[in-house]
Amino acid sequence: PSRLPGYATHQVGVAGAVFDENTKKVLVVQDRNKLKNMWKFPGGLSEPGEDIGDTEVREVFEETGIKSEFMSLLSIRQQHTSPGAFGKSDMYIICRLKPCSFTINFCQHECLRCEWMDLSDLVKSDNTTPITSRVARLLLYGYREGFDKIDLTMEELPAVYTGLSYKLYHKELPDNYRTVTGMD
Amino acid sequence: PSRLPGYATHQVGVAGAVFDENTKKVLVVQDRNKLKNMWKFPGGLSEPGEDIGDTEVREVFEETGIKSEFMSLLSIRQQHTSPGAFGKSDMYIICRLKPCSFTINFCQHECLRCEWMDLSDLVKSDNTTPITSRVARLLLYGYREGFDKIDLTMEELPAVYTGLSYKLYHKELPDNYRTVTGMD
Repeated sequence: PSRLPGYATHQVGVAGAVFDENTKKVLVVQDRNKLKNMWKFPGGLSEPGEDIGDTEVREVFEETGIKSEFMSLLSIRQQHTSPGAFGKSDMYIICRLKPCSFTINFCQHECLRCEWMDLSDLVKSDNTTPITSRVARLLLYGYREGFDKIDLTMEELPAVYTGLSYKLYHKELPDNYRTVTGMD
Repeated sequence: PSRLPGYATHQVGVAGAVFDENTKKVLVVQDRNKLKNMWKFPGGLSEPGEDIGDTEVREVFEETGIKSEFMSLLSIRQQHTSPGAFGKSDMYIICRLKPCSFTINFCQHECLRCEWMDLSDLVKSDNTTPITSRVARLLLYGYREGFDKIDLTMEELPAVYTGLSYKLYHKELPDNYRTVTGMD
């Protein structure tokens, strides 16, 4: 095994599923430049040093004008681009967000359309990407049976040596598993 | 919002929790160089173009001599290093693996110790990192109440335009949510 220092091999992108539990509507956009007329979640690339959740909130606002709050991580995609891309890969993370504002003011450069769509319509739509469709179904499952069924929640922890902290995302542990000591 | 092309900002590392359901033992190592005497899961950095699951299987084998099979993704950590690191960040992914061999032959350069430990002992141990401890509890929860409670399973899907494919990880949908059409 190589003991050379690592280097950056991935760009990190995010998509934010902003779901309003009161109206059962979810925020979707259509790209102006690619995937035309396919409904998808707003999102974009992380800036250096930026946390996933902050990227989501920023990108959703820049693209749609909607303010939102990070709730959980739902899904991850890993994709490797063609050999010509010098081995750069893509990690794409889909999160669940809660809206804090509702008036759409979308970016005309990036989006052709932007709307609050009934979650059940997005689930039924053929006019969407495979990822969007699966995440819509996950949201419906979570809405009906509890978001704890689908959420990877975030915890901030101190790094052992550096004095910095990191953010850890995983399925939330039930109370009786958080403090296990004498279990067998 | 910037429309410049993205670039690689993250290195991707993996750790593999190799759990044997028959013996309730999990494969753990102690690093030779850092985190001395702290039990953790074997792992390392992804090579360019390498899928998460393949990195896990390779790193576990290189470090411990154990052959294993990728089962699911359990947890993700995002960490940003100090400003001196030129904004490079770290995405660290912890997966669940199933052992295909059992005789340990560990790498003396990397590891001080390597053993099959009772999962319940790892859960109780103070001599471990916060991530290892949380993942041990997740494994115990999954073992007792069903791994579907903790697993993000993998699906390979075709990319819309490029003709390539990608791997998508999320909580598995129950059967009745996979084919929803007329739900409301």
